[in-house]
Amino acid sequence: MGKIDIQQLNDMANHLRIDSIKMTCAAKSGHPTSSCSAAEIVATLFFSEMKIDKAFPKNPSADRFVLSKGHACPVLYAAWHQAGHISTADMMNIRKISCDLEGHPTPRLDFIDVATGSLGQGLSCAAGMAYAGKYIDKASYRVYCLLGDGECAEGSVWEAAAFASYYKLDNLVTIVDMNRLGQTQQTMLGHDAEALAKRFESFGCHTIIVDGSNVVELLNAYDIARQTKDRPTAIVAKTLKGKGIVGIEDENNWHGKPVPENTIEAIEQRLMNKEDMTGTLQTKLPVNDAPCVQLPFGCIKMAPPEYKIGDKVATRQAYGTALAKLGDACPRIIGLDGDTKNSTFSENLLKKHPEQFVECFIAEQNLVGVAVGLQCRDRAIPFASALFS
Amino acid sequence: MGKIDIQQLNDMANHLRIDSIKMTCAAKSGHPTSSCSAAEIVATLFFSEMKIDKAFPKNPSADRFVLSKGHACPVLYAAWHQAGHISTADMMNIRKISCDLEGHPTPRLDFIDVATGSLGQGLSCAAGMAYAGKYIDKASYRVYCLLGDGECAEGSVWEAAAFASYYKLDNLVTIVDMNRLGQTQQTMLGHDAEALAKRFESFGCHTIIVDGSNVVELLNAYDIARQTKDRPTAIVAKTLKGKGIVGIEDENNWHGKPVPENTIEAIEQRLMNKEDMTGTLQTKLPVNDAPCVQLPFGCIKMAPPEYKIGDKVATRQAYGTALAKLGDACPRIIGLDGDTKNSTFSENLLKKHPEQFVECFIAEQNLVGVAVGLQCRDRAIPFASALFS
Repeated sequence: MGKIDIQQLNDMANHLRIDSIKMTCAAKSGHPTSSCSAAEIVATLFFSEMKIDKAFPKNPSADRFVLSKGHACPVLYAAWHQAGHISTADMMNIRKISCDLEGHPTPRLDFIDVATGSLGQGLSCAAGMAYAGKYIDKASYRVYCLLGDGECAEGSVWEAAAFASYYKLDNLVTIVDMNRLGQTQQTMLGHDAEALAKRFESFGCHTIIVDGSNVVELLNAYDIARQTKDRPTAIVAKTLKGKGIVGIEDENNWHGKPVPENTIEAIEQRLMNKEDMTGTLQTKLPVNDAPCVQLPFGCIKMAPPEYKIGDKVATRQAYGTALAKLGDACPRIIGLDGDTKNSTFSENLLKKHPEQFVECFIAEQNLVGVAVGLQCRDRAIPFASALFS
Repeated sequence: MGKIDIQQLNDMANHLRIDSIKMTCAAKSGHPTSSCSAAEIVATLFFSEMKIDKAFPKNPSADRFVLSKGHACPVLYAAWHQAGHISTADMMNIRKISCDLEGHPTPRLDFIDVATGSLGQGLSCAAGMAYAGKYIDKASYRVYCLLGDGECAEGSVWEAAAFASYYKLDNLVTIVDMNRLGQTQQTMLGHDAEALAKRFESFGCHTIIVDGSNVVELLNAYDIARQTKDRPTAIVAKTLKGKGIVGIEDENNWHGKPVPENTIEAIEQRLMNKEDMTGTLQTKLPVNDAPCVQLPFGCIKMAPPEYKIGDKVATRQAYGTALAKLGDACPRIIGLDGDTKNSTFSENLLKKHPEQFVECFIAEQNLVGVAVGLQCRDRAIPFASALFS
């Protein structure tokens, strides 16, 4: 990667910052500082690492990106704007009732697979997508999930990490935007990247610590992740909240607040490169190797139930019987369970079609998230069951 | 500790096994195998390590025991039976509609602080109790929490571990009964105690691996835990599910199933020591150093609200105002929040009474569990708030 390319990516990161700052100012609400810390991460992913299809963002062969820290969506909208997929006018309408660009991303948008914003849920969905890629589609697409560091206090993150390593999801890359600051104070680990990395390492991830504002370190980490086999990768990216905004960068009390409108010009002048060459940056196209799938919604063919009138059958037993029959009818019917498959009778599907069953162990939040991830881009029809006593 | 004492504890463990096997046979349901793996852990805790008050189990100065793997309650009921607190007749009535000894423990029982059974919740409650002991009561009682290994897939366990290490709860001891087998198959980590220990270590716990059927190793680990300062201790105890039952020990498909009734006699003969000397084993009494507390339920004295008719005040703002006033009125009113204290206005309490506020960060399950733990034995009146978007 040459000097010009690096400068292009740095310039792009600053474009994402400026866009994030401007759109949240226009909305008079939103999260510019949480966006600014992630600017280089998103710039490098979208304009160097990931293979995406601007014309058809939900192309099943394209790489997936899950913004688990959904409140930082301005930087994501900015990326799709810079890629040419969102107009300036739309972008500046963020958070207006007339605009689909909400304050947290939803799958109503053609480039969003799963709704995020309620923290801690994205990695499970991403793990479901990665599972589909590796074991169901057997395709080359990869899944990138961006988390906040405050969010890593959520247990569901660790359920997902354990799942991803158990199933050797080496097509899954977790990136933590470790900007040190939560909503109201410093996070539990602050900037102790080693401590956070140890946690991901102990949960079976290959772990890399980088300066999250350094595009070369980021690109290098993605490269290592791509070469890592049989383990997911977790990149702990040390960043600064509000990076690039004088007086706000790395300061507390700036969560979820637009910058003062009269400071935008100075910020822009300071950040933007006069010889900006981002115009030549291109996103990479996917390799179209994911199978075309027509899921049989509303037209599945299966024999009718074999019960006689008066038969008494436990609901869960009927569920297991029906699930196995559905599995016969469609190879993309996938059962998931939380180590209760002999109670829920989802084991009926496992016994007939082991490749159509995902054991999720006793981690029900992750189970549901994985199911959500599996069904994205019509890759599968998941049936999630567990015993909640 | 002499040879006789060790033999006494081994004999006691086998008594707990036999009791667990017999009571679940009588009920024709329940979890003898999950009880048997934990027999030495429970025997050593109740008859050597813990300070408990048989006459008044909820003595505020007594050590706490939380059976997070609540389905293994037969071994806990057996311990209280062997301690003289539950009659044989009551014990043999487990799981009957007329009996308070349910299939999972509830606080209706005078020796149970929190209901368990829904896995992954006990450690948060235990952490709340330990927080109360260290920071509110400033007393010497300790908190012991027994988890299953399958249960460690639950993210809430890691939320609790992170909380406990952040607040340096060195009065909290987590013991994982690593018996390898879940309900339907081997757990994610099987018997890889090192892998599980690494996880607890990375979450800030002092970690000890022991043979969970070896009473000397267990006692030694408790001793090390007592000497460990500023960190909680996690003991990973390698055990065998169904330990002591020939043909069932370490075998799959024996979760939640009583043993065949006609095998009990042979099991008893094999396990019990003919010169059984457990009769002289005594539980240890607590040091009565926890303060007497009379919480002002229904009689709290505080000034009436200062709003004028027609005032428009956000509910959350009124909450914060009222919470701070409650905090003035009673030093055991404790606020908890999940890094949203400036949204929920619980920060009003923090500002006036910092020692009456517990920041729980973005881990809402643990937040609620800690609140539950705080209120046990009338140690505090918790108010838990968070922003769920």
